[in-house]
Amino acid sequence: MSSVLISEVGPRDGLQNCKAVMPTEAKKRWIAALADAGVQEIEIGSFVSPKLLPQMADTGEILDFAVTIPGLTVAVLVPNLKGAEAAIAGGAHKITLPLSVSETHSLRNIRRTHAQVIDEARAIAALVKSLPERKRPHFEGSLSTAFGCTLEGPVPEATTLRCAEQLMAAGCDEVGLSDTTGYGDPASVRRLIRAVRGVIGAENLTGVHLHNTRGLGLANALAAYDEGITTFDGSLGGLGGCPTAPGASGNVVTEDMVFMFEAMGISTGIDLRKLMATREMVAEALPGEELYGFTPKAGLPLGFKGEPVPAPVAAG
Amino acid sequence: MSSVLISEVGPRDGLQNCKAVMPTEAKKRWIAALADAGVQEIEIGSFVSPKLLPQMADTGEILDFAVTIPGLTVAVLVPNLKGAEAAIAGGAHKITLPLSVSETHSLRNIRRTHAQVIDEARAIAALVKSLPERKRPHFEGSLSTAFGCTLEGPVPEATTLRCAEQLMAAGCDEVGLSDTTGYGDPASVRRLIRAVRGVIGAENLTGVHLHNTRGLGLANALAAYDEGITTFDGSLGGLGGCPTAPGASGNVVTEDMVFMFEAMGISTGIDLRKLMATREMVAEALPGEELYGFTPKAGLPLGFKGEPVPAPVAAG
Repeated sequence: MSSVLISEVGPRDGLQNCKAVMPTEAKKRWIAALADAGVQEIEIGSFVSPKLLPQMADTGEILDFAVTIPGLTVAVLVPNLKGAEAAIAGGAHKITLPLSVSETHSLRNIRRTHAQVIDEARAIAALVKSLPERKRPHFEGSLSTAFGCTLEGPVPEATTLRCAEQLMAAGCDEVGLSDTTGYGDPASVRRLIRAVRGVIGAENLTGVHLHNTRGLGLANALAAYDEGITTFDGSLGGLGGCPTAPGASGNVVTEDMVFMFEAMGISTGIDLRKLMATREMVAEALPGEELYGFTPKAGLPLGFKGEPVPAPVAAG
Repeated sequence: MSSVLISEVGPRDGLQNCKAVMPTEAKKRWIAALADAGVQEIEIGSFVSPKLLPQMADTGEILDFAVTIPGLTVAVLVPNLKGAEAAIAGGAHKITLPLSVSETHSLRNIRRTHAQVIDEARAIAALVKSLPERKRPHFEGSLSTAFGCTLEGPVPEATTLRCAEQLMAAGCDEVGLSDTTGYGDPASVRRLIRAVRGVIGAENLTGVHLHNTRGLGLANALAAYDEGITTFDGSLGGLGGCPTAPGASGNVVTEDMVFMFEAMGISTGIDLRKLMATREMVAEALPGEELYGFTPKAGLPLGFKGEPVPAPVAAG
């Protein structure tokens, strides 16, 4: 049986795009419940200025809590060396540095050119390598707006490939592809995965971060899976989006993605019922926030993983 | 450039599951606008008892109107010979007889066993063959609940294959696969298409009718496309569902599906802007009815088929 890793980014990408701030204790309960549902990797926050993103102000405390959960891979988004230092000090298992392939988006989002972000990547890689091996987090460079940008429009593939090469050369362990704006489609997802792997090697691109902006999130995930991608970011209830990308709200809904893979016989290790039960916690902690997802509303099919099956009827 | 045929079933499958009845003149305006947007095939209604489905009571008048639209393939759903006679009298180009693979669903939905539906298929095929060639509609047998049933649960593949063979033996020109309940996933879609084609021949299964009940509609469409399926039913705004399948609301959203294929470089012949503009007509004619679809809400990506592209910025 094949399997995939679902990386839950709701506590980071989801919450940082919500107007309301989820209380710290609610975040902890949610993260614990996600882990209890079998989620093996959670991006729990990002070390950014609390003035810019008050939703992430408690990332240090959340990190301290999350690393106590047995078996959980705790991921943190870091915009720079300073953030990486904090994440490493807190014991994060994975740190992700975003590099927006659209330089306009990069400047608008984190006020840095490509060259400046690559400098940060180099500094972070040096820090990581200076650590004893057992303390080194996995260091991913994430190519955001890789499929297009709501500020620049289409993004040249050559730029994406150059950014991927530069991140690896700077010392990243891996590069991820992010459809920050929901511009991707199954054909471009397949094409870009092949192109990037052609440049940096298949083993250095194993994860994608997809949005559901135009409803194509799961189709794109399927296309990526067909290409051999094994790590899929998702956000519970589809929380999230991009503050500088108008209309680009909504990560892929974790619940629907888990349903898709499990229905296909591809193991996620996640108990879908327990996962869906955490929606209530989120709804309570974020009143007024819209939760997406079709599977939670429709319920699981009869006969699906222990769901009841009616008594057989006579064949016609 | 490859292409697919998008068959709009909103005026039939969509409207018959809405509480409100769309006025006849509004239906005509909508169908005309869909055709003007480049939709080449529309299932305009079904000849069923107006007592059971008052939403379909004007199918005769709608058919008379639709066949006057140049170039449009006018499809009609018929539950039996009587319906087929009415559709043929009105000049329908395509008639579709549903056969529910779940016999429980068949009995509940149209009060007929499999054997009785196959008898109807045989009678309809005889009628079609008695016509002069230029007056013969294309006669499709549609396997509904082919991926599972909300009354029976999982449906044995052997039953689906037997039904497909019996429909072809009865004289259908073609068999279609319908995921009436949204139980399908990309793996089962691929598997069942291959299995049915193995039994009746690839040329006799070219279309699928998918629902978006659990959010997998487009992923399933992609899987079907990868298998060589070329006709895809969709419903504007995702209108529709199944009255005997609780929670199973929502066909695949035509707008999102057209966006997916066009973004992939697969031609649908449909002007997506014009298609999306017809949502307003539907919203006005069906007050209170929820219209699904992500692409209409997010808008088209910059640079997509004539959308503006911002001035280039300096590369980093």
